[in-house]
Amino acid sequence: MNFPQVSFTPLKIIPMDEGSVMHGLKRGEESFVDFGEAYFSKVKTNVIKGWKVHYEMTLNLVVPVGSIRFVIFDERGPESNHGFREWTIGEENYGRLTVPPGVWMAFQGVGEGLNLLLNVADLEHRPEEISRKELEEIPYSW
Amino acid sequence: MNFPQVSFTPLKIIPMDEGSVMHGLKRGEESFVDFGEAYFSKVKTNVIKGWKVHYEMTLNLVVPVGSIRFVIFDERGPESNHGFREWTIGEENYGRLTVPPGVWMAFQGVGEGLNLLLNVADLEHRPEEISRKELEEIPYSW
Repeated sequence: MNFPQVSFTPLKIIPMDEGSVMHGLKRGEESFVDFGEAYFSKVKTNVIKGWKVHYEMTLNLVVPVGSIRFVIFDERGPESNHGFREWTIGEENYGRLTVPPGVWMAFQGVGEGLNLLLNVADLEHRPEEISRKELEEIPYSW
Repeated sequence: MNFPQVSFTPLKIIPMDEGSVMHGLKRGEESFVDFGEAYFSKVKTNVIKGWKVHYEMTLNLVVPVGSIRFVIFDERGPESNHGFREWTIGEENYGRLTVPPGVWMAFQGVGEGLNLLLNVADLEHRPEEISRKELEEIPYSW
């Protein structure tokens, strides 16, 4: 069985004298599934938010301010496929992380100041399609 | 003839120890037309970006960082309806400004630091549906 993978898509920052324009997500892009909700999440320096899994939602994550480290724990399918992957994205490594349903995710503020995340999700927030675990329950060397 | 008006919808900020969650736009809300593109625009303190009119796009504007003053110049319909309106939104007056097609808009960075704007638009960017004017062409007492 094939599971959709987490993917990173580099995005353009267009510099302008008055302040830059930063791409996010277009309907025509491969990452786009549907539009359900767009919301922000701030995360303080060194603080970790997670673990959380969405059973239905696909996340499209962009970090326009600061820097955030995302860790994915994938336990879908046979045990040989299980494992961690991590990405650090933000103004320095600007792009979009597309996270399919069914993988566990936690993220940590890396930038010294504000770390801001935009999620353009294909579904509106519904607590029923989310599970949570304490950080210690999925051990990772942060 | 009735033109859709520019509207402001207050949005929730949910405070959390690790960093707050800030609402943006949900599919089920009245402001939602369609999803075409989400992108960011930064604007430096006191700097003004504009004027610009979209002939087809509806803009949904949210300011998660800093503060931005939006000025609308409406010249649709009979002259008695023409005029300016302004809104200053951001972390302090958090909400969404929905701008229908056909009105001129310019905006100015108000916050001392970073001023960040998210636009969740119903169409992908297409230069053909945009016109621009120099600031002096639509005089306003900034």
